[in-house]
Amino acid sequence: MVAPLRLGLAGLGTVGIGVVKIVQTHADLLAMRTGRPVVITAVSARDRTKNRDADLSGYAWETDPVALAQRDDVDVFIEVMGGHDGPAKAATEAAIAAGKDVVSANKALLAHHGQALAEAAEAAGRLIRFEAAVAGGIPVIKALTEGLSANRIKRVMGVMNGSCNYILTRMQSEGLPYAVVFEEARQLGYLEADPNLDVGGIDAGHKLSLLAAIAFGTKVNFDAVELEGIGAVSIDDIRHADQMGYRIKLLGVAQMSGRGLEQRMTPCLVPKKSPLGQLQGGTNMVVLEGDSVGQIVLRGPGAGEGPTASAVMADVMDIARGLRLPTFGQPAATLADAVPARSATPAPYYMRMTLLDKPGALAKIATCLGEAGISIDQMRQINQPGAEDDNAVVLFVTHKAAPADVAHAMGRFGATGVLIGDPVAIRIEEV
Amino acid sequence: MVAPLRLGLAGLGTVGIGVVKIVQTHADLLAMRTGRPVVITAVSARDRTKNRDADLSGYAWETDPVALAQRDDVDVFIEVMGGHDGPAKAATEAAIAAGKDVVSANKALLAHHGQALAEAAEAAGRLIRFEAAVAGGIPVIKALTEGLSANRIKRVMGVMNGSCNYILTRMQSEGLPYAVVFEEARQLGYLEADPNLDVGGIDAGHKLSLLAAIAFGTKVNFDAVELEGIGAVSIDDIRHADQMGYRIKLLGVAQMSGRGLEQRMTPCLVPKKSPLGQLQGGTNMVVLEGDSVGQIVLRGPGAGEGPTASAVMADVMDIARGLRLPTFGQPAATLADAVPARSATPAPYYMRMTLLDKPGALAKIATCLGEAGISIDQMRQINQPGAEDDNAVVLFVTHKAAPADVAHAMGRFGATGVLIGDPVAIRIEEV
Repeated sequence: MVAPLRLGLAGLGTVGIGVVKIVQTHADLLAMRTGRPVVITAVSARDRTKNRDADLSGYAWETDPVALAQRDDVDVFIEVMGGHDGPAKAATEAAIAAGKDVVSANKALLAHHGQALAEAAEAAGRLIRFEAAVAGGIPVIKALTEGLSANRIKRVMGVMNGSCNYILTRMQSEGLPYAVVFEEARQLGYLEADPNLDVGGIDAGHKLSLLAAIAFGTKVNFDAVELEGIGAVSIDDIRHADQMGYRIKLLGVAQMSGRGLEQRMTPCLVPKKSPLGQLQGGTNMVVLEGDSVGQIVLRGPGAGEGPTASAVMADVMDIARGLRLPTFGQPAATLADAVPARSATPAPYYMRMTLLDKPGALAKIATCLGEAGISIDQMRQINQPGAEDDNAVVLFVTHKAAPADVAHAMGRFGATGVLIGDPVAIRIEEV
Repeated sequence: MVAPLRLGLAGLGTVGIGVVKIVQTHADLLAMRTGRPVVITAVSARDRTKNRDADLSGYAWETDPVALAQRDDVDVFIEVMGGHDGPAKAATEAAIAAGKDVVSANKALLAHHGQALAEAAEAAGRLIRFEAAVAGGIPVIKALTEGLSANRIKRVMGVMNGSCNYILTRMQSEGLPYAVVFEEARQLGYLEADPNLDVGGIDAGHKLSLLAAIAFGTKVNFDAVELEGIGAVSIDDIRHADQMGYRIKLLGVAQMSGRGLEQRMTPCLVPKKSPLGQLQGGTNMVVLEGDSVGQIVLRGPGAGEGPTASAVMADVMDIARGLRLPTFGQPAATLADAVPARSATPAPYYMRMTLLDKPGALAKIATCLGEAGISIDQMRQINQPGAEDDNAVVLFVTHKAAPADVAHAMGRFGATGVLIGDPVAIRIEEV
């Protein structure tokens, strides 16, 4: 029998316990499929006394994850602690320095330090793998890095934060405002301790930056992601979008154009009938577009014990089977510094604004749009039953317009003196 | 620079030319991602004089694919000729015997001879890979074998023949009968020369048998697939199903139960709102269910030059990168002989029948169902405007029933003497 692959597991939260369960219940299956036993030798977590839903008595215990990462009886260091600095970073660096391969579920760490870690790993001849860091149980990094490896990638899109999609779906289905559903989600434990990581788009932005690096062969650059959370999405816009055949999603989009690499994680309208538009609740979806393959859509659970542990263990299985790929699919030294481009690609836009009941009000708005080079595809005036005034809510769907032109027009609306409140513009991503 | 990976390409039809184009246009990308050049050295096809949409002048030509497979300047033999016997089989065997790795798009060959070929390849220390054989451009074999490698697979489902889904979708959207849409599809070139390979479910059954072998660690057993094509699907049933919230799909299902391995490729009802129900036209979809990950859905183009060549080249890239997995994900010698079980898993059923306008007719049918242990969830009587008689079309949706019980009840309906024509029963797959 070949030597077992020995895992050191840092982090015994939901995901860590999921990993323990797979290793314990599927020992035969893992050995059959990889040709060698896969075992846990040592674990680490802050609190040893905590009651956990797994038998850990057979494993050595390290309070310090750095010590775990350096143990002689560990071949693969699994980091499921989280946090983009501190112990997770120190332990990952220690593991590489000690000659261990690393499997990580830590999107924040990789989004912030991925390039340096990849370079260190490759210099040491070790691997960093992170399937679990993006879209939970969906094998999207494998699909992109390997399944579509012969394609030039044109665009990567995704709904990659289940909590945000849960909130937006529930706002839509129940007609509830953001604040109410946000509070529900918080009480149900669907949100991070700092909820802005979810609803501010940061968590999903981390994931997008990792996919973009793989897709376009560029250095991961989370700071260049255009981030806009869902806190400003109004139930009115969800309703109007629905009536016009759209859903609002927190959608990540990465694409390379002549102007550089665009990375956006922002609320967008997508057609109701598209796979992205049909995605309900906490499920994740990633859309990969390649020049040969066309469009591939992957859908599955984006979080949770089983799905995330499944992804962690898929990376472990690959290591056990001898697959050795660079962190981002090509050597770290060959990853390019992409010029960040902010929303260079034109798209149709949805716009909502409230016009004063004055002669010529609409003409003034239309003039702003025209002067910005934006033409109107659809316009609707919404009758508000029971409204106390005659002010009109007006919706536009524009033809494709450059984001800068939309920003320009939006900036000029105020000077017309015919608007009440702030106008809204939301990109309609063509999927 | 490391030595190039040298490809011998047998078959210069649509897929073969797609492979040539990728190798020629993406040489830098392939080398960057694998660390070595990937080149074609020799090609083979029946007719050298045929005008093809690619420059083949730099490649050696072999009229005999066996000779191609044995060339010293070929490392990987790519078989995109098709046919489950004859030259494709001989050349694949010759390639393995000559110490070449094999990349195949040939589902028929693998469905019929996969076990023997896998054993031969493993004995010779060579690989057979076949991502392109199942669901075209969707990296489903990779997702199943690698991405979900730490899961016990519970069920695999899929719409894996785009032509059948095109026909069923168009029947539904246009209200056209099968024969008309079949003829359209034939004239558009959407069907194989022997259309029964498509509409009889054989092509999709081949694919299902390959996925089942990987999913359940069993020897591929195409002969045990319960096959039923779409030729008997009526526009009436499509309409009735639609009204009750379902679509009819040619759905492949493989699952392991206590009674053995079930493999079905049959028309089924699926909920309209499910991803499978929403799948339109020629697109493919595969649903993978694992014990840890839950449900993963993959959607993409199931055929065509670019998508299929993308899948062929993904296998080539894996070989170039040094990934070496057994043909069906675990050593051929460890694949089990599964007991074939025919439709052991209970499901709800849709039934349609025309009852004579006689007192007690419905009671007799209900009695047959009751005696077979089948209970009724919904019943509808369809009014047929303008019908010349008072005979009633009756639809049932049953609660979950064992397929054998359904067959038993269907067999007894005739003896009641109250039916006109044959009753129809279609499984409702729970997705």
